[in-house]
Amino acid sequence: MSIFSNHIDELAVNTIRLLAADGVQKAKSGHPGMPMGCAPIAYVLYSKYIKHNPANPKWANRDRFILSAGHGSMLLYSILHLCGYDLSIDDLKNFRQWGSKTPGHPENTHTPGVEVTTGPLGQGFANAVGIALAEKHFAEIFNKDDLKLIDHYVYGICSDGDLMEGVSHEAASFAGHLKLGNLIFFYDDNQITIDGSTELSFSDKTAQRFEAYNWHVQTVNDVNDIDALEKAITAAQNVKDKPSLIVTKTHIGFGSPNKQDSSEAHGSALGDEEVKLTKKNLGWDENKFFYVPDEVYKAFADVKSKGAKLENDWNDLRNKYAEKYPEDAKKFEDFMSSKYREWEKALPKFELDEKGIATRVASGKTLNAIASYLPGLIGGSADLTPSNNTHLKDFDEIKPGSYKGRNIHFGIREHGMASILNGMALYGGFIPFGATFLIFSDYLRPAIRLGALSKIKVIYVFTHDSIGLGEDGPTHQPIEQLASLRAIPNVVVVRPADANETVYAWKAAIKHKESPFILALTRQNLPTLDLNKYNIAEGVERGAYILKDSEGTPELILMASGSEVSLALKAGEKLEAEGMKVRVVSFPSWQLFEKQSEEYKKKILPSSVTARLSIEAGVELGWSKYTGVKGASISIEKFGSSAPDKILFEKYGFTVDNVYAKAKELLRKS
Amino acid sequence: MSIFSNHIDELAVNTIRLLAADGVQKAKSGHPGMPMGCAPIAYVLYSKYIKHNPANPKWANRDRFILSAGHGSMLLYSILHLCGYDLSIDDLKNFRQWGSKTPGHPENTHTPGVEVTTGPLGQGFANAVGIALAEKHFAEIFNKDDLKLIDHYVYGICSDGDLMEGVSHEAASFAGHLKLGNLIFFYDDNQITIDGSTELSFSDKTAQRFEAYNWHVQTVNDVNDIDALEKAITAAQNVKDKPSLIVTKTHIGFGSPNKQDSSEAHGSALGDEEVKLTKKNLGWDENKFFYVPDEVYKAFADVKSKGAKLENDWNDLRNKYAEKYPEDAKKFEDFMSSKYREWEKALPKFELDEKGIATRVASGKTLNAIASYLPGLIGGSADLTPSNNTHLKDFDEIKPGSYKGRNIHFGIREHGMASILNGMALYGGFIPFGATFLIFSDYLRPAIRLGALSKIKVIYVFTHDSIGLGEDGPTHQPIEQLASLRAIPNVVVVRPADANETVYAWKAAIKHKESPFILALTRQNLPTLDLNKYNIAEGVERGAYILKDSEGTPELILMASGSEVSLALKAGEKLEAEGMKVRVVSFPSWQLFEKQSEEYKKKILPSSVTARLSIEAGVELGWSKYTGVKGASISIEKFGSSAPDKILFEKYGFTVDNVYAKAKELLRKS
Repeated sequence: MSIFSNHIDELAVNTIRLLAADGVQKAKSGHPGMPMGCAPIAYVLYSKYIKHNPANPKWANRDRFILSAGHGSMLLYSILHLCGYDLSIDDLKNFRQWGSKTPGHPENTHTPGVEVTTGPLGQGFANAVGIALAEKHFAEIFNKDDLKLIDHYVYGICSDGDLMEGVSHEAASFAGHLKLGNLIFFYDDNQITIDGSTELSFSDKTAQRFEAYNWHVQTVNDVNDIDALEKAITAAQNVKDKPSLIVTKTHIGFGSPNKQDSSEAHGSALGDEEVKLTKKNLGWDENKFFYVPDEVYKAFADVKSKGAKLENDWNDLRNKYAEKYPEDAKKFEDFMSSKYREWEKALPKFELDEKGIATRVASGKTLNAIASYLPGLIGGSADLTPSNNTHLKDFDEIKPGSYKGRNIHFGIREHGMASILNGMALYGGFIPFGATFLIFSDYLRPAIRLGALSKIKVIYVFTHDSIGLGEDGPTHQPIEQLASLRAIPNVVVVRPADANETVYAWKAAIKHKESPFILALTRQNLPTLDLNKYNIAEGVERGAYILKDSEGTPELILMASGSEVSLALKAGEKLEAEGMKVRVVSFPSWQLFEKQSEEYKKKILPSSVTARLSIEAGVELGWSKYTGVKGASISIEKFGSSAPDKILFEKYGFTVDNVYAKAKELLRKS
Repeated sequence: MSIFSNHIDELAVNTIRLLAADGVQKAKSGHPGMPMGCAPIAYVLYSKYIKHNPANPKWANRDRFILSAGHGSMLLYSILHLCGYDLSIDDLKNFRQWGSKTPGHPENTHTPGVEVTTGPLGQGFANAVGIALAEKHFAEIFNKDDLKLIDHYVYGICSDGDLMEGVSHEAASFAGHLKLGNLIFFYDDNQITIDGSTELSFSDKTAQRFEAYNWHVQTVNDVNDIDALEKAITAAQNVKDKPSLIVTKTHIGFGSPNKQDSSEAHGSALGDEEVKLTKKNLGWDENKFFYVPDEVYKAFADVKSKGAKLENDWNDLRNKYAEKYPEDAKKFEDFMSSKYREWEKALPKFELDEKGIATRVASGKTLNAIASYLPGLIGGSADLTPSNNTHLKDFDEIKPGSYKGRNIHFGIREHGMASILNGMALYGGFIPFGATFLIFSDYLRPAIRLGALSKIKVIYVFTHDSIGLGEDGPTHQPIEQLASLRAIPNVVVVRPADANETVYAWKAAIKHKESPFILALTRQNLPTLDLNKYNIAEGVERGAYILKDSEGTPELILMASGSEVSLALKAGEKLEAEGMKVRVVSFPSWQLFEKQSEEYKKKILPSSVTARLSIEAGVELGWSKYTGVKGASISIEKFGSSAPDKILFEKYGFTVDNVYAKAKELLRKS
């Protein structure tokens, strides 16, 4: 059966296979088939190609490896162990157990050497595109003809599932367009999915599909042919202007006499008996578990020493660079460590203005005011640049073959955009941002979630944040999107009430760390509040604050976010004119408010005041936490309509008169 | 400039162009460029190919036309008007106004002749795939060699944006796999997106990409070449075993002297002056608005009379069919009108069982028990069939070239699945269902929303509904998904507590009308409650009900859904054993509960009882509406972890002891 020309190659590959089989068997849970099929790929890449230093998994110029088929996590854990990462055999034995370093799917926050959290299919593939773009940008900004500071590849393995997912289309099309020649993906072509043979649902000519995306495509007919793998990798490395796909024919569960090439090998442990049979079949001692032959450890010792040397050499190069190009070297260090200076001073201020401007416009001005101080601030829109106001006027576009720009045209690929931005965030140093209409946050939600789980920050600029977008109608009008984004753990959503709140929302976004930060902005103009009168700067930071208070304890609290704040202010004035004691709270962010002290929270929303009315042009869901059972909400519990925005706000009850009426009703009841 | 060989063709095409330009100009909002570019396609299709009867837009055997590029709505409204649908010139003048029949993007609920609500890009394209599959299924079930009851095409136009979106990849790959030869799409290849030239972000060789999906691909080099369009359509019709893409070179804003071929023609009115110039340029009277030459109306009169005849002929055919195949004819009528019999009697009952079964297993048994009574019940999973328990054992698979089966293998294409199911639901007669893990509802969310907006029902079977899925870890454990699905207007979410609640959840799902219905089901076993003791049948229907009550007024209400209900019951017992008066409420569905009378709601949750504790293994968001400010929630406000489910429930506080402790604390405070 063996076509291995080299004994140690075969031994190492089988070691990986059986570590995976043992790991899954011990956990009685997991996916043995993929690692057993793809072991040769991981072996060749990690032992012969990937430039890395197991002793320092965060070395800046390492090659990246992304296991997009994250269910094959034992493949990654096994190879990382062999390479000498801080991942012991005991860690492998703890696969999928509470508190272990070896969770069911790879998590970047848990395991040294795991670059990206993967599992939801298609995501890792798209993340890798973002990482490849990040490398290209860094390289073009900092590399000199004589000293290449950043110069590495991004490797990955993807599965049928990754390539069936739509996000793979978006990311592959984008990567081909941008000619990301530093990206090399293996496609684990094993013909099997959970339901059975891929024939049940899949007939794509994948090679042709990727050629249509302008990728360089090769086929390796037998994954066990180490020479063929090596030739393919070398060829891929040499193609500088195209990303590479290496379609590799594999056998899921390779070596398992009864389960190889069947969906039974995909997502369950093989069974004690079958693991034994597999070991026997592969010439292994069936009574050894988690066994690594000494020869294999010895072979990998080389990987560690080479890795240390690689990083040392690079450190020398960096020192030379620092001598020869001290300014660039400083910029590089600042960029890598996200050191920002002076940018806060550049934040704009907007004057009191009843006509005002849209918060998307204020956002665009803010972004442009601070961009030159924040070299890592890079991003763009999913083909709504003029509507989202995200163009950085002083900077170039990122183009095929030219990556130093800071404006990215993602095309109509929201999901791809967000996953690519996650990749850039994972690279380090960047403050990536992405923009689209708030409604289309639905398209990219899986990537926001994965960013939150991975503890990385991407700033999202979601404009056209309510029925205020008007004539485009209900397909484009967000109703439930604010609530559904607020539901995601760790994610911060800020919906500023005017131009100045927008400025401070951006300030909070830049300062924020380790999770997605969302700005929800209007299409329509909003009155600009008086920066001298209201404590907007601190207020936004705290998530909610008193904009206007009554003398003495209020009888009523009106709370609102975004475009509804000025409505609350006006209704408050009308109520006050009739002698009522009204507090108006601007509530741009629930998550920022929840981080405040209990004392602060009670100061803003004292429990003694039960007549509380929230006003937000979206579903009520969640507001009851702040309004209480005796409070009420002016909200929207149905879809929008196509009409001019002013008419919509009137028809949906967002008028001073309706707020006034609802407030009076509430006061009567309480 | 003109290459039209026929005067009336040119006149009709320009009429459409200028109706669109006028409509957008009057609204001062909309997308004139696409209709002006694609007018010849709509003209040729509607006047010469599409088999339809404008007097009866719901005729069962009509061809369907899907404008996936929904922003070009004025194209559709204009051609529907010309064809004699119930859509007047005044309706066109009311484009994008409150209450009009001509909203910004086409809505199936608003306008006769509009098959599908489109606008969010990629959706219409995927819906069309579902419609094409529906036609194939119907045809294979009912057609006889001599009498073809259902025999029509599905046409559509898609844009760059549609084809950049990931969902287009999923749907196109699926359609090619299944050889849906009845599907014919034009691709409006205009080289322009909102950001500017497609060169900014797009280099796909689209023809090659679609060939890789096993589509039949043709190119028409000039959209104004009516002969070429006709030839292409005829050729596409003749390819029976492949869906067709006709790549058509168009000019956005065709005819506008200053805006043609520019992104300025895409999403804004051309401007009064430019509209005049365009009219002049196209040989039109610049002072006529919404003008349809009599010759054009006359030419289209033919369309109406032909349409009436087509339907008459079909009615004759149907009568013949009814004579010759009376049983099948009855089945056909029942199917089309969703008449179901006997199925309720087939619903299974599950005996009291402490060990119990997973609700996903109960769901599978229920589905299989009722399937043979419900011929329209058809669906499948996004490659998780064995995990979702959605296989219909007594029925075939849908396969390439064979469509009578009722099991669909969607592949790892969640988003495509949901959009395709929307298409099937729009077809009428079907009860389509789709399945995946609850976590991956994030991938298909845009389609759920669009289904809710379109008033169509798809049943979603979302299994593995909490950290209870265990070892796969946080990438696969839903935390915020229940809340975020509950946020979507009109959508019903039911999370049953045991096998019997699952049965009644299915009953409610089958009976439900006009919006998506979601079942959230466990991976893990749950105790089966005593059907004789608890009022489960009525309880599920009402969304929440008292499972166990105290004597006299309760001091405390425990409310829970799904897997946490049995926990609430046990904690309730423990508290009662200490003499506390505890009510336990099973709360499978907020939306069904909200539909109940105020009286019923108050009966379940009397305002006098303020000590209320909700228990659900997900975010708290929204529960405060039911627990009140004095209540509390046992919830999860962070991501999950990889470990066996029992350990996770313990670590995350879902134990009898913790519920007991939290309840005691609440009672102390109140």
